Amino acid sequence: MTVSEAPPFATVGARGRRLDADDKVTGRARYAGDLILPGMLHGVIVRSDRPHARIVSIDSSAARALPGVVAVLTAEEAQGRFGEIVKDQSVFAADRVRHVGEPVAAVAAETAALAAEAANLIETDYEDLPAIFDPIAALAPDAPVIHDDVASYAGPAELIRWGNVLAHITLRRGDIEAAFAGADRIVESSYAAHSVHQTPMEPRAVVADVDGRGRVTLHSSTQHPFGVRYQLHEALGIPLADIRVVAATVGGGFGGKLEASLDIYAALLARAAGRPVRLVNTREEDLANGNPRHPMRFRLRSALAADGAILGREAHIVLDAGAYAIGSPLIGGVAAMLIPGPYRIPNLAVDVKVVHTNNIPFGSYRGPSGPQSVYAVETHMDEIARELGIDRVELRLRNAFEDGDEGPTGQRLGRVSLKEAITRAAEAIDLATPAVSDHPNTLRGKGLACAWWLTTTGSAGCGVQLNEDGSVVVQIGAAEIGTGAVMAGVAQIVAEELGVPLERVRIIWGDTDATPMDAGAQGSRTLFNAGRAAQTAARDARQQLLERAAALLEAAEADLEIVDGVVQVRGVPDRGVPYAELTAGQMWMSEPILGRGAFLANPPAIALDVIEGSVFTVFNAPSFHCHAAEVEVDRETGQTRVVDYVVVQDAGFAVNPTFVEGQMQGGAAQGIGYALTEEIVLDEGRMLNPNLALYKLPTTLDTPNIRTVILEYASDQGPYGAKGVGEPPVVLPPAAIASAIADAIGSPVRTTPFTPERVHRVIREGPQAATKDFPL
Amino acid sequence: MTVSEAPPFATVGARGRRLDADDKVTGRARYAGDLILPGMLHGVIVRSDRPHARIVSIDSSAARALPGVVAVLTAEEAQGRFGEIVKDQSVFAADRVRHVGEPVAAVAAETAALAAEAANLIETDYEDLPAIFDPIAALAPDAPVIHDDVASYAGPAELIRWGNVLAHITLRRGDIEAAFAGADRIVESSYAAHSVHQTPMEPRAVVADVDGRGRVTLHSSTQHPFGVRYQLHEALGIPLADIRVVAATVGGGFGGKLEASLDIYAALLARAAGRPVRLVNTREEDLANGNPRHPMRFRLRSALAADGAILGREAHIVLDAGAYAIGSPLIGGVAAMLIPGPYRIPNLAVDVKVVHTNNIPFGSYRGPSGPQSVYAVETHMDEIARELGIDRVELRLRNAFEDGDEGPTGQRLGRVSLKEAITRAAEAIDLATPAVSDHPNTLRGKGLACAWWLTTTGSAGCGVQLNEDGSVVVQIGAAEIGTGAVMAGVAQIVAEELGVPLERVRIIWGDTDATPMDAGAQGSRTLFNAGRAAQTAARDARQQLLERAAALLEAAEADLEIVDGVVQVRGVPDRGVPYAELTAGQMWMSEPILGRGAFLANPPAIALDVIEGSVFTVFNAPSFHCHAAEVEVDRETGQTRVVDYVVVQDAGFAVNPTFVEGQMQGGAAQGIGYALTEEIVLDEGRMLNPNLALYKLPTTLDTPNIRTVILEYASDQGPYGAKGVGEPPVVLPPAAIASAIADAIGSPVRTTPFTPERVHRVIREGPQAATKDFPL
Repeated sequence: MTVSEAPPFATVGARGRRLDADDKVTGRARYAGDLILPGMLHGVIVRSDRPHARIVSIDSSAARALPGVVAVLTAEEAQGRFGEIVKDQSVFAADRVRHVGEPVAAVAAETAALAAEAANLIETDYEDLPAIFDPIAALAPDAPVIHDDVASYAGPAELIRWGNVLAHITLRRGDIEAAFAGADRIVESSYAAHSVHQTPMEPRAVVADVDGRGRVTLHSSTQHPFGVRYQLHEALGIPLADIRVVAATVGGGFGGKLEASLDIYAALLARAAGRPVRLVNTREEDLANGNPRHPMRFRLRSALAADGAILGREAHIVLDAGAYAIGSPLIGGVAAMLIPGPYRIPNLAVDVKVVHTNNIPFGSYRGPSGPQSVYAVETHMDEIARELGIDRVELRLRNAFEDGDEGPTGQRLGRVSLKEAITRAAEAIDLATPAVSDHPNTLRGKGLACAWWLTTTGSAGCGVQLNEDGSVVVQIGAAEIGTGAVMAGVAQIVAEELGVPLERVRIIWGDTDATPMDAGAQGSRTLFNAGRAAQTAARDARQQLLERAAALLEAAEADLEIVDGVVQVRGVPDRGVPYAELTAGQMWMSEPILGRGAFLANPPAIALDVIEGSVFTVFNAPSFHCHAAEVEVDRETGQTRVVDYVVVQDAGFAVNPTFVEGQMQGGAAQGIGYALTEEIVLDEGRMLNPNLALYKLPTTLDTPNIRTVILEYASDQGPYGAKGVGEPPVVLPPAAIASAIADAIGSPVRTTPFTPERVHRVIREGPQAATKDFPL
Repeated sequence: MTVSEAPPFATVGARGRRLDADDKVTGRARYAGDLILPGMLHGVIVRSDRPHARIVSIDSSAARALPGVVAVLTAEEAQGRFGEIVKDQSVFAADRVRHVGEPVAAVAAETAALAAEAANLIETDYEDLPAIFDPIAALAPDAPVIHDDVASYAGPAELIRWGNVLAHITLRRGDIEAAFAGADRIVESSYAAHSVHQTPMEPRAVVADVDGRGRVTLHSSTQHPFGVRYQLHEALGIPLADIRVVAATVGGGFGGKLEASLDIYAALLARAAGRPVRLVNTREEDLANGNPRHPMRFRLRSALAADGAILGREAHIVLDAGAYAIGSPLIGGVAAMLIPGPYRIPNLAVDVKVVHTNNIPFGSYRGPSGPQSVYAVETHMDEIARELGIDRVELRLRNAFEDGDEGPTGQRLGRVSLKEAITRAAEAIDLATPAVSDHPNTLRGKGLACAWWLTTTGSAGCGVQLNEDGSVVVQIGAAEIGTGAVMAGVAQIVAEELGVPLERVRIIWGDTDATPMDAGAQGSRTLFNAGRAAQTAARDARQQLLERAAALLEAAEADLEIVDGVVQVRGVPDRGVPYAELTAGQMWMSEPILGRGAFLANPPAIALDVIEGSVFTVFNAPSFHCHAAEVEVDRETGQTRVVDYVVVQDAGFAVNPTFVEGQMQGGAAQGIGYALTEEIVLDEGRMLNPNLALYKLPTTLDTPNIRTVILEYASDQGPYGAKGVGEPPVVLPPAAIASAIADAIGSPVRTTPFTPERVHRVIREGPQAATKDFPL
């Protein structure tokens, strides 16, 4: 870890224990599915088994007649539309289903078994429509149009939409034609990246409660309680004052629990039944009906000078949105920003087409579009290096962003850690020394990959109360999704600012009634935004405390400091008052101390002349990263094993190094799973492997020791300089592993995942075009 | 209702519906006893069946051996001491029990039946000690001392304590000897007032939860969540950061749910078992082991001028505290302040002795010491009027406090509504016209009584958040105990200040993690204190809103007003911006709006030269009241029926007249129950009538139509001038009814309750001394 130049801290920067650690490791943490409410019913959602069909009729009479069934809902009983960017999805399909798994009805009954039985009794008569599953085919002028009434959808005006194209995002910079005209060499290659599921340990789950006025309370496994509240409000027209969303313990989300999904159906059922309703996905439901990572296709073409300078880049990207939009236009915008990589490329022409198919809708998964895009861009960089005969590291260092450079949309960068990251990663894996196999049947290779990443903005708020004994209660709207950002990071920040030990802090989080608004655990934003709000709130409380101490000690506030629980005149330890003496009388003798903090970093900017159809043009607190890998490939089977892995990450400031490392290691492990074994296998829009026997998550045996190096290039907005750290680690592994495999086998692998079959074929046959390559 | 001079309000002052009304009337409200937590155990407390005994041994081995029993606790496993004023009570009796019902052990088991079975298996071997049940006997110099190790108790230094006297409170003013020496007449009389139970619809109930660190969450039927948290902290030494108290729906409290009672045992059992524990009193447990109203004895002696001016008053009061202190010293202090009544009495000598007996501990019941003291004082006033031959109303008006007068401890009074209250009550009951019976077997009489009352201070805090649609979330630490002070009053105040309709407000209350500190629903304080904090918080949010509007409209904040959901330049309706436009972007485009308010009225003052041994010397926002009653007494049985009843009450400002009237009527009904039928019958410290067949609550058939007149003499601290309204209505009925009975039968009744037997005896035999009269 780079030594921070920050002043000596007591609590931040240290490896404090999470406040929820004991509950998590002893199995005591209470998840949404554990909750029991008096009179609670069990719900189930009835889903389409067709990828594209007209609904002729739905007969729910037998289900309704079943004793113990309390509510049955279809489009007839419950209208409403939802969607993160575009309100394109009906709560229940009325006339038409567009993907396998689309909700058609929902049932609430006295037991889960009865609910399942009732669901089976609902008869839906379909008339199949022509379906498309390949986004390139969906672009054909004569392709059937999946959404043919887009004018009736609400959505941002910036969307440029035609046929099955949901959004067409363009990034233009400089003079691309001149760049290619003046190039010494041109390198062109194509890549295809597949879909994987977030597979949190805990499937989606919610319990909806309802009061006598129809006001709904959701106990939800959500990353974004305020977002779920707003989506419910928008989808169902329920006033915000009539909805409370309380985040239950979240057993992992990884982007899969940002949208209101089960929440909407649980709320509808609870209101219809007038009783609480529990909806918990089975693993199969969760895998088959999630919103997994987007499959993407890339065609990249770079104009190069002989010395390796990248003069220009042209890129065509097709992102399969699946049947509905969710956040896909936004995610396409992120992809556009990633195509230049963290490199100075003066001339750019990037086109991202976000395209509908009859696949399941694809959505947010940690670092959305990142693993796919960085894999394509960095493999392309390796191919350039090979083509030009320049060392991979050298090529990257030659083009790397430097302090004060301008990003692809004109954003002025501050200090850039990229070159240090590259150097440290290359050193750690000893890239200069070729990998040597110790067995004739195996090949060994080393590789590395770079990327930059953003820290998402959005509102954050925090309240800090002091108790009579000087301990602290924190109310924060952010969600603790298992990263420690709240239960370690925020706790440490508050403890630091108030000069109290960590165990004297307690935190309530993610409750739309009890905590200030927050834009949710997404985009690596929690510690950066909510941490800053917490710091402000703690300083506000501290100020109120100092005011009381100043009056008591007859000193100026500015001359006071807090040392070991005593507020004292700086440098005069015997002129002090114990902390708890200032707080003890709060119930009867003095007003309660109530600190408050709100924070919003640069809001998202829209610059249509640069990026059309998307909203991401500013990377808040941009961070720079490099991963390096060493792999062993079985010459005869193509089986690849990662034997060493290094993550070098700029955290800005590591409020808790343990949890930053946890993110780095966990993200890298997920990235390794994506690169090698995990895959959602769709056949005509239907998932063929919706269980954990067939959907192959890496186990500890598949995961190497992941070494970590934290860089601390402070941001000027995050608390103590912190930047978002959650997403970057998952973004680079496919690229780094691809680089190492290419090093081992001598050819690039242009399609993910790097299965034995695929790697073996490249060993045998040399470089392939990407699966389902497409013309520029 | 007096027409208020306040500006026209939209929401306050109107009869808005409570936000929890639907839940309450449909039976959907969820009480602590309704909660189910995963793995929850059922607890029971094992109590002493002796009034005073040494514990020889406790054998809990059989209970521990019973399958399904998870935790058994006695003093061996759980130490700790508690008590509101004096920490005189062990959590579990170790060596000695001092009253029937004192906790000796507690059990948690898989079912309630198993817990009860285990409790029965615990064998306690006692050696009886001499017990005292009469507080006068307890004063005898040779009485056995119930607390003989008081030096080891923590308690305020102001307590003056000897023998069985827990506190001796004295109030001295002027020259009492001179007053009596110069008197034209001296009237002396004695009174005895009995004990009644708060009997809320819902008995005490709590569910304790515990996390992996031993942190405890209590879902409690409590009036005072922050108080329970603090008492747990003090009793068990648990840091405040390790306790959360969430008030469940409270099915009535009336002072009986101020103290941590079951809470302590539930917390201990949950921590011992490592699982949630539910403790719910049966009605019998609740009646027999509550902390009911204090039995009190009074001997009053007044020095009078011939014209009715009261020159001086000497009073000796004995208040039976029962076996432990709880809040009795404080309550004795209130009694002292009530003895002069709302009258100018220049010379005073009041002695209140708070005395221990081996009765159950007596505690807070709505208007503590008020009904007893006002009954004594006002009956004494009637006796003076009769003695001097002055009309009852005339005597009161002649001595009544007036604007700017000085209270008995030197407090300067503001505007005094007393004379208007007396006049209005006398008019309403037509006191000038004698009551006439319409049946030869019945006697009729009319009466009235006056009192003044305080509004308790204590911290209050509130948070106000604005949602994207302009609706409002309020976090308030106060408890909604069924009065509407929070769910109507606070809601209306916030709606008023922010210019939104009532249904766009939602409130979370009484949660030590989620809401700012509050000193609890006691002493008529909620609306006065928490309402003011809410007003401040709403104004803070409003200010933030106006700042945004000012920037947008390019206007000065001072020139803006909120009209019908639009922030507009005053008088220029077309230069405005809809409210929701200012709040809509809070998630992504602007910081969240977080309003905050804290409030503390004059803190309690201690003035040892005036009142020794107590803390009440200032009545915050004092209010003045008069009740009038007409009764019918059966000549042959002594049975008394209240046929008409009028409550005239100064509310300062009625934020919601419906709920002020609700307090007035509910309080009067409880007061009628106290006066006529309810009584805790103790035999050697054991309650003989611990069920609702024998403990006679008045039904609707026993309760007349209660007419209400609200006066509005604004206070300068409460919101819009509001004063506390909860306690006064329960304080006056025994006095008013005694006055009417005396009018009917021609003699005062000097002991409560006014049972047929007692009234019949007075009819037969004329005025009695108070039961168990005592010498001065």
